[in-house]
Amino acid sequence: MRFTKMHGIGNDYVYLDCVRQRPPADPAALARAVSDRHFGIGSDGLILICPSERADARMRMFNADGSESEMCGNGVRCVAKYVYDHGIARKPRLLIETGRGVLTLDVEVTGETVSRVRVNMGEPILKSADIPTTLPGDPPVDAPLTVGGVTFAATCVSMGNPHAVVYVGDEYFRAGERDLVAELGPKVEHAPEFPRRVNAHFVKVHSPGEITMRTWERGSGITLACGTGACAVCVAGVLTGRTGRTLLAHLPGGDLELEWSEADNHVYMTGPATEVFSGEWPG
Amino acid sequence: MRFTKMHGIGNDYVYLDCVRQRPPADPAALARAVSDRHFGIGSDGLILICPSERADARMRMFNADGSESEMCGNGVRCVAKYVYDHGIARKPRLLIETGRGVLTLDVEVTGETVSRVRVNMGEPILKSADIPTTLPGDPPVDAPLTVGGVTFAATCVSMGNPHAVVYVGDEYFRAGERDLVAELGPKVEHAPEFPRRVNAHFVKVHSPGEITMRTWERGSGITLACGTGACAVCVAGVLTGRTGRTLLAHLPGGDLELEWSEADNHVYMTGPATEVFSGEWPG
Repeated sequence: MRFTKMHGIGNDYVYLDCVRQRPPADPAALARAVSDRHFGIGSDGLILICPSERADARMRMFNADGSESEMCGNGVRCVAKYVYDHGIARKPRLLIETGRGVLTLDVEVTGETVSRVRVNMGEPILKSADIPTTLPGDPPVDAPLTVGGVTFAATCVSMGNPHAVVYVGDEYFRAGERDLVAELGPKVEHAPEFPRRVNAHFVKVHSPGEITMRTWERGSGITLACGTGACAVCVAGVLTGRTGRTLLAHLPGGDLELEWSEADNHVYMTGPATEVFSGEWPG
Repeated sequence: MRFTKMHGIGNDYVYLDCVRQRPPADPAALARAVSDRHFGIGSDGLILICPSERADARMRMFNADGSESEMCGNGVRCVAKYVYDHGIARKPRLLIETGRGVLTLDVEVTGETVSRVRVNMGEPILKSADIPTTLPGDPPVDAPLTVGGVTFAATCVSMGNPHAVVYVGDEYFRAGERDLVAELGPKVEHAPEFPRRVNAHFVKVHSPGEITMRTWERGSGITLACGTGACAVCVAGVLTGRTGRTLLAHLPGGDLELEWSEADNHVYMTGPATEVFSGEWPG
């Protein structure tokens, strides 16, 4: 079975072209096998690029443990690049069907291939009951949240999955003996204020248009990049008055550009998509 | 450039056939690029399979940081499998040139391809000055070694690289909050008794013919498998009277069979070699 390895700022998946070849019989088992970084191909999971009746392609995404997820912001950019570069649909605006509906993606082409993709990530969810969180406010903005003896001012946003954003100093970005994100991230994730747990983002503001962030991802720990999290950080910056509606976010794996549009209330995420290599998986 | 991904009980490398294609201009830089597990192919390093004037093939090995190493017990088994399966030399006994000289390897063929390989790993080095260690004895056998408030009985052997073997109980093999190998391994590695540091092996004996081991590898930390370390554990078992000259060793990544031959004083290691997938790396 032919596969392509791609990443979006370090968030890496094995991609199977199921438009041109038969889809795997058991994608959950295949995801577990290929994702293993020593015994398999090595990836954060498996993404199938399938035919769609209402879009240019349909994305199905399986995590490394075999569970299926609805969407991945870094993954859907790579799907758009594959669909364009490999001629499934060679159009500047692509529609990709995901578990969260049909998304609209605009590709930036350098030479013959896609280098960056702009994704309409939809409207943020701001009602605390829907995020969900028991912190006060719709949404909670700079609400006090105490974990491990530290009190943060937390701003909460859902982009379909729950995010808590806190603004911190340099000490959360230093290499050394203590890693404060590793220490406090899991405590935020499991705080009783988040009944379905939460993705925790530690953000340092450089200017109203630029931040650096580190993420403790729900169920995954420290990761190189979280696309929906960067969208939530853009929204939180506007809600707290710390940053503007357009934002350059530096993540450990690379940069994303965000915009929370005043015109339509949607969040737009722009970032690179990279094809690393292609190969043949036996069987 | 075509590549093949292979592993020996989880110790995984990207293999380049430099008999049939031009070798890379800068293998150190290529090793760093391909080894990255999110942005590259993902591996413990890069191994070039080159023509040899005095063996069936020559192995050059580059670690993930670009440094060159002389030999790798799990890697050389995969080199033998590649050389046989891909028809460079289809013989039951292969000679592979390494940075430690020409090694003799016997392949076990299942169907048309190699499943297991027996490697003559040479004679153990038992003089403490050559291991090197300042612990008493040639070699030190059950010598007291105190690190982090714990006193071990350490047996030291070099297989070209230095090893310290200690025998421990179940508490070193339990999953949980505390990982004693992660805690004490680096303290053994850096103990003043080892002027060139050391690989630390924590061993539980099941019977005179069977052990389970976990390794803290010098410069790498906890790893899935250490081939020379398993050889050292076999030798240490004979020196301390705990195990016999043939040994089945369970490592985190899989099993190895060892024999310290009475006839020629050489250590023989037998284990699997697995081809995972092949691919094309751009440029």
